[in-house]
Amino acid sequence: MAARIFSSFCSTLGKRLSRSYAQVGMAGLPSFVKIVEVGPRDGLQNEKNIVPTSVKVEFVNKLSETGLPVIEVTSFVSPKWVPQMADHNEVMAAINRKPGVVYTALTPNVKGLESAMAARVSEVAIFGAASETFSKKNINCSIEESLQRFQGVLTKAKEANLKVRGYVSCVLGCPYEGDVKAEKVAEVAKRMYDLGCYEISLGDTIGVGTPGGMRNLISTVSREVPIDHLAVHCHDTYGQALANIFAALQMGVSVVDSSSAGLGGCPYARGASGNVSTEDVVYMMNGLAIRTGVDIHKLIEAGQYISNAIGRKTGSKVAQATHSSL
Amino acid sequence: MAARIFSSFCSTLGKRLSRSYAQVGMAGLPSFVKIVEVGPRDGLQNEKNIVPTSVKVEFVNKLSETGLPVIEVTSFVSPKWVPQMADHNEVMAAINRKPGVVYTALTPNVKGLESAMAARVSEVAIFGAASETFSKKNINCSIEESLQRFQGVLTKAKEANLKVRGYVSCVLGCPYEGDVKAEKVAEVAKRMYDLGCYEISLGDTIGVGTPGGMRNLISTVSREVPIDHLAVHCHDTYGQALANIFAALQMGVSVVDSSSAGLGGCPYARGASGNVSTEDVVYMMNGLAIRTGVDIHKLIEAGQYISNAIGRKTGSKVAQATHSSL
Repeated sequence: MAARIFSSFCSTLGKRLSRSYAQVGMAGLPSFVKIVEVGPRDGLQNEKNIVPTSVKVEFVNKLSETGLPVIEVTSFVSPKWVPQMADHNEVMAAINRKPGVVYTALTPNVKGLESAMAARVSEVAIFGAASETFSKKNINCSIEESLQRFQGVLTKAKEANLKVRGYVSCVLGCPYEGDVKAEKVAEVAKRMYDLGCYEISLGDTIGVGTPGGMRNLISTVSREVPIDHLAVHCHDTYGQALANIFAALQMGVSVVDSSSAGLGGCPYARGASGNVSTEDVVYMMNGLAIRTGVDIHKLIEAGQYISNAIGRKTGSKVAQATHSSL
Repeated sequence: MAARIFSSFCSTLGKRLSRSYAQVGMAGLPSFVKIVEVGPRDGLQNEKNIVPTSVKVEFVNKLSETGLPVIEVTSFVSPKWVPQMADHNEVMAAINRKPGVVYTALTPNVKGLESAMAARVSEVAIFGAASETFSKKNINCSIEESLQRFQGVLTKAKEANLKVRGYVSCVLGCPYEGDVKAEKVAEVAKRMYDLGCYEISLGDTIGVGTPGGMRNLISTVSREVPIDHLAVHCHDTYGQALANIFAALQMGVSVVDSSSAGLGGCPYARGASGNVSTEDVVYMMNGLAIRTGVDIHKLIEAGQYISNAIGRKTGSKVAQATHSSL
């Protein structure tokens, strides 16, 4: 019986995405979701082997052709901390910029911002935390000190008429402190929003959250920051990312961060996942009849390109299911 | 920066599940969910190499110790169709039966039912489809003919006071026909329910569904079959399983099928996933403060045992994240 099923299944391989499966929208969900592609930065930054600049450039160029509205290209941090991103100037200089696409970069301080501006980024992002211990271990200062540092970045960016996005990490749990209160996340998010960040991305950095926690988080934070200025940044370490994103959409969130091919596998547990894959997010949006503007076929190709180039199996289940060679 | 994060993360490895992360329940969700473990049957049936009977028995025995309420142990089908399940009698005879645990088996016809009864199963299950083409290719008869065949099984099971569960496959899409109408699923589900099945498990056999489709499905089917007699059986081929299960819970479904270690990887796309993993389902339920009665640590051990025994990497992200050796 089963054997018969699967031999017939084989003949349908690859047709799956073009076949007519029902798209079923739901009341209360946004009609359009902006996907922020973080693969080239968040996805690649922990790769041990330095990825050639030409590969990064080709990856970004392929992503530019998919219809993605925002691509986080690199970060302007010291090569001492993140050697993988040392070629930020070269990458920014070499990519083909598609009109309408936002090319952004992480800038932890004013020095980074100045370099990023010289490299002609479209906008920048800063990276804070909702956990005191995580902030100290990660950026070597308290949350309060980090906010003061960000103020300098925001002041200078404002002078240059450059938009700044704010990340808040550990929003559903911290590896050191465990549970993180939604109220604490709301406080940090509000501070960053008040400083001038136009969008606050709430990061479940270690992927421990579940949909009830996400719902509670969005409910609490949106009392301080308008919901159309909130994004979610989910990691799939415990397999919960899409369920959490779905819960966030139900609350009215309409900006989702994700990483092509699920780049950024969790480096502290071999084989475990990191960022949710853009392909799987776009597949869900398509099924929910939510527009993203992204061509999923081109997206899968871009993911396949970078996976092959760095010698990793794609972290996207959609890509695995539709490409038997992956 | 990033390097600093991850070296510190390493020291927390393994503590993640016992650390205090918020459990956040949600209004409208069930307080208890019954997990139906299908790993030993649905998970193993497509393994090419015959799994030794002793391994299957040990796997079921380990699952019995986790607190799982229902374990689908094997199927009583012809070894010609499913050679992996040819040892159904031996497995049923050798397992340790824990009081309170339901040990069930698939019985496609009266002959299978008689063998299953002789092997002292707790209950049985029949397997139909909502797609005409799938039914013909899979069990070699039309949906109507399959229902007539099931009638014989149900009549005999009723005489023996044996409960019968009904599976409906292809509820969110068929590999041959594409879209499958929820009304068709409802019609088949109602027929099986009227025939005497006490529970109808709705199977997204090829994992193509998304949460809007699931919501529409449950809404439609529950007009014909009471919702407390419905289960969902999601495959994670496109990464959508947990989001779909969450959507089903929101509709009031409180029975979920899953497979330990995500056994049952999709055999027609190398590396692609099949059944959703029980570990990841239980993790989500725990996070949502929904009781399942399952000890997730023992569950991960059972999944690790069978993954090692058959030489496969676990399909559970929770297991991957918490066991660096997986």
